[in-house]
Amino acid sequence: MPLDRRERDFLEDTLPFWKKLTPEQQRSVVNGSGERRFAPGEMLHRGAVDCAGLYVIESGQVRAYSISETGREITLFHLFERDVCIFSASCMMKDIRFSIYMQASEDTRTILIPTPIFRQLNQDSAAVSNYTNSILSSRFSDVMWLLDQILFTSMDKRLAQYLLGHFDENDGTALQTTHDEIARDLGTAREVVSRMLKYFQSESMVKLSRGRIELADRKKLENTAG
Amino acid sequence: MPLDRRERDFLEDTLPFWKKLTPEQQRSVVNGSGERRFAPGEMLHRGAVDCAGLYVIESGQVRAYSISETGREITLFHLFERDVCIFSASCMMKDIRFSIYMQASEDTRTILIPTPIFRQLNQDSAAVSNYTNSILSSRFSDVMWLLDQILFTSMDKRLAQYLLGHFDENDGTALQTTHDEIARDLGTAREVVSRMLKYFQSESMVKLSRGRIELADRKKLENTAG
Repeated sequence: MPLDRRERDFLEDTLPFWKKLTPEQQRSVVNGSGERRFAPGEMLHRGAVDCAGLYVIESGQVRAYSISETGREITLFHLFERDVCIFSASCMMKDIRFSIYMQASEDTRTILIPTPIFRQLNQDSAAVSNYTNSILSSRFSDVMWLLDQILFTSMDKRLAQYLLGHFDENDGTALQTTHDEIARDLGTAREVVSRMLKYFQSESMVKLSRGRIELADRKKLENTAG
Repeated sequence: MPLDRRERDFLEDTLPFWKKLTPEQQRSVVNGSGERRFAPGEMLHRGAVDCAGLYVIESGQVRAYSISETGREITLFHLFERDVCIFSASCMMKDIRFSIYMQASEDTRTILIPTPIFRQLNQDSAAVSNYTNSILSSRFSDVMWLLDQILFTSMDKRLAQYLLGHFDENDGTALQTTHDEIARDLGTAREVVSRMLKYFQSESMVKLSRGRIELADRKKLENTAG
């Protein structure tokens, strides 16, 4: 089913190359694309086995992560409204030699431009290819930031920064989460997070209870975050 | 001074988009580019302060690295003959939000296509922009591999793999290097490397002397490398 007027307008508004496409190219996108919805926890992309195409996110949130051979995860970046999943079309880029997984963190509505259509646009249009470059650069920058954090920031600082960020995203004083989830986001082992949280509690920075972390002393936690 | 016949042929042979350029575009490259030579230790690119353009390496070797706020280095990748430094033109990509440094590891001869010329080609030609994509993807893959190593491989494994690789690049039995240099390549502290090397020596895997590491038991070292 081709895109309706609202969906077409959303793409025109979101994709900077839209106005540089020929009418024929625009038609190929409108006729070939479709809406895809994902429930929380549902996968948009599972590494090399998938290559559906370019997802343009209308609403919701997507977590992109990498998995080690031993099954450990590290969160690479998050995508929000008007962001674009380029790695879900990564089979069209032969020099991508890594696998990324993408999972909806909440109810997520997307428009999918299938790989064959996007591949053709990318080959024919410098504007589309320039856009692919800018998306790749932006995700590359996310990963370089993460690499820098992992290499050069000690785990107590990283955890303190993580907690402060998540307190602020919630009501500012508490958050519901598991040590497992934090470990996954920080790319470390659960034991490391548990040990550090206990230390934070012993220093009266936070209070721990089952599935819940409460802020006890913001000043102290901010000092640790540096 | 425009490129001579040999240099032009080298570009034609190395850059997959060359034949898709218009005669005018080819002329702009030939007339605007020039050879640049670098002695070992000389910098090709120093983060945001430089933006000379695309270096195409004719011969030699270049190390690309990142520097933390506290001055620590991590080697990201190496470039060899016929590789291309895209980050030395990264000011043309506004979504690159990180700094990379590039240093000649040996005598290095390059052809420099200045940023204004390459930017124009990249804007006008889908073939050039596709090439930029493939270079970016390839470097992105290098960094993802590194991230995986750092997160999911313990330092003893990484050091053993590093030593085996470097023994093999040399005569297979010894290498001249400092603990500092290894630490920089692995993105860790010199003390960590020194401690681990002493452990390797105590296990009879290697023999240490000033500025030199000798292979003592390849089998054991390979077991550690996993």
